[in-house]
Amino acid sequence: MLILLTNDDGVMSPGLKALADAFQDFGRVVIVAPDRNRSAVAHALTLESPLRAEEVRTDLFAVDGTPTDCVNLGIHGLLREMPDLVISGINRGANLGDDITYSGTVCAAMEATLMGVPAFAVSLDDTAHQGKNLPLAARFSRHLAAHLLDNGLPEETFLNVNVPAQKVRGMRLTRQGKRRYGDVVTRKEDPRGRSYYWIGGGDLGFEDIPGSDCNAVHEGYISVTPLHTNLTNDSSLQDLSDWQIPLT
Amino acid sequence: MLILLTNDDGVMSPGLKALADAFQDFGRVVIVAPDRNRSAVAHALTLESPLRAEEVRTDLFAVDGTPTDCVNLGIHGLLREMPDLVISGINRGANLGDDITYSGTVCAAMEATLMGVPAFAVSLDDTAHQGKNLPLAARFSRHLAAHLLDNGLPEETFLNVNVPAQKVRGMRLTRQGKRRYGDVVTRKEDPRGRSYYWIGGGDLGFEDIPGSDCNAVHEGYISVTPLHTNLTNDSSLQDLSDWQIPLT
Repeated sequence: MLILLTNDDGVMSPGLKALADAFQDFGRVVIVAPDRNRSAVAHALTLESPLRAEEVRTDLFAVDGTPTDCVNLGIHGLLREMPDLVISGINRGANLGDDITYSGTVCAAMEATLMGVPAFAVSLDDTAHQGKNLPLAARFSRHLAAHLLDNGLPEETFLNVNVPAQKVRGMRLTRQGKRRYGDVVTRKEDPRGRSYYWIGGGDLGFEDIPGSDCNAVHEGYISVTPLHTNLTNDSSLQDLSDWQIPLT
Repeated sequence: MLILLTNDDGVMSPGLKALADAFQDFGRVVIVAPDRNRSAVAHALTLESPLRAEEVRTDLFAVDGTPTDCVNLGIHGLLREMPDLVISGINRGANLGDDITYSGTVCAAMEATLMGVPAFAVSLDDTAHQGKNLPLAARFSRHLAAHLLDNGLPEETFLNVNVPAQKVRGMRLTRQGKRRYGDVVTRKEDPRGRSYYWIGGGDLGFEDIPGSDCNAVHEGYISVTPLHTNLTNDSSLQDLSDWQIPLT
């Protein structure tokens, strides 16, 4: 059994360590993770520049790239064999609703899926990462991994797992919900009087959608969302089928 | 009428210029695009560092960030009003199949959609970008924009448009297909004998899937794929509904 672990918080993250510890007697565990925090890099893949992979110790590699790079390079360049499972996390903070489209953690699991390896991302709704639920999130990941390895996953599908910070009441299978953001870009001036900008986006909570990942975590449930690597909105194909757009 | 244009090839790209020219008498056209090539950065959003936006000339901004940054900063920081439409392109080379999950061009349209603005991405299957179909792609974009503005789009949905390099036979509404990649990471040594890696991924063509974006473009049709910002694989929810994962 060969398990590849990655994350987007970087190789030193306590969430990654908790995950590695939980899988220690599960098989060979190889960590290929960014050498520093690479949050919000989504499914970015480094094609225009080379990558370095420092083997910090046996089976622990720090890569100067994105989480997606780590999975791709990890499998094709470092392991040079297919792992049985890729797990990305445990992320410092939840990945819920539209946030997942920006998430390096979630997109690392997407990359594994595109490469034909079963995968899930796991996040803890606790940015301090000191809550008592980190061990619980690691244990749940282990149970889920065992289940996945026995039962497989639907085609082109990976899982996005979020563990609440508060007391856990159970598990729910969910759909991607919707976060609400403040529409904030802050403009500042540097010491030479030139403008610069910070993308801010104050978090205004989430839309109340029963069955969503956001609702589940808010209500104290571990959320498990099956995500698709195929982004086609099938239900809209019928709506658009009578469109006639001139070609010239 | 206010149209925001962006891309991932950078502000100097001929594809972006062709698009801007086609929309010149359509309304106010504002370009907010990366200051250099930012291909394959997916939906990456810059949160850990500030952004610069240089106003090269009136309504043309070069940003040292990703295409997603350009849309977010463009709307919230530069325009400070909602555009009627966001168009991303015309990309140098097709964005088909799984490739779209890496595409900065496609994810810029995703970002606009998350912000509530109708959007599409448009790419030309011609990496030299010198083919005769660049003007055709620009004109088609104009017709599509007019149609979109009249008819709207299904909720949480944006369009991925790909124009073939060869003679165009018509338009097809499609689903995201599947590209095949060579599993290639190249290892090299620097002058000091240390290893570095390039993610390669030789293109092995695409899977033959009738109705897919890949097939349409290969057969000479403009491909229009409706994509969803919600990645939930709804059809798999039933399959997973009897999963029982222990919590401890």
